[in-house]
Amino acid sequence: MSEKFLPLAAMEKLLKQGGAERVSDKAKMALKNAIEEIANGIAVKSIKLAVHAGRKTIKSEDIKLAVKE
Amino acid sequence: MSEKFLPLAAMEKLLKQGGAERVSDKAKMALKNAIEEIANGIAVKSIKLAVHAGRKTIKSEDIKLAVKE
Repeated sequence: MSEKFLPLAAMEKLLKQGGAERVSDKAKMALKNAIEEIANGIAVKSIKLAVHAGRKTIKSEDIKLAVKE
Repeated sequence: MSEKFLPLAAMEKLLKQGGAERVSDKAKMALKNAIEEIANGIAVKSIKLAVHAGRKTIKSEDIKLAVKE
């Protein structure tokens, strides 16, 4: 798991923008953890795809393919 | 789609932590867009689940079920 990169305040903002009236602290943490885990999975896959294509630079096509997998 | 909440620098950090040597600007943007879309989908589902449970407060169980769906 990568280092954490999402602030809890951003999680509350996201849920309030979606129409939530109130958000529990545990819900913010659960959303943060879920998104970080998904993001890390996409990152790891995209790096494997770049290596597979013989590149050291991650390109947008690596990300797009990693998301689809 | 919700307002954007992820800085591009965080996307580069995430990919570098995963072992990427270099990351194109378009790749950062693609990762940001993908994560934001996924996060927004989880937020929208979790709000529906809270409403379904007769609550105005989003709880962690709403998030966890939304992620599984």
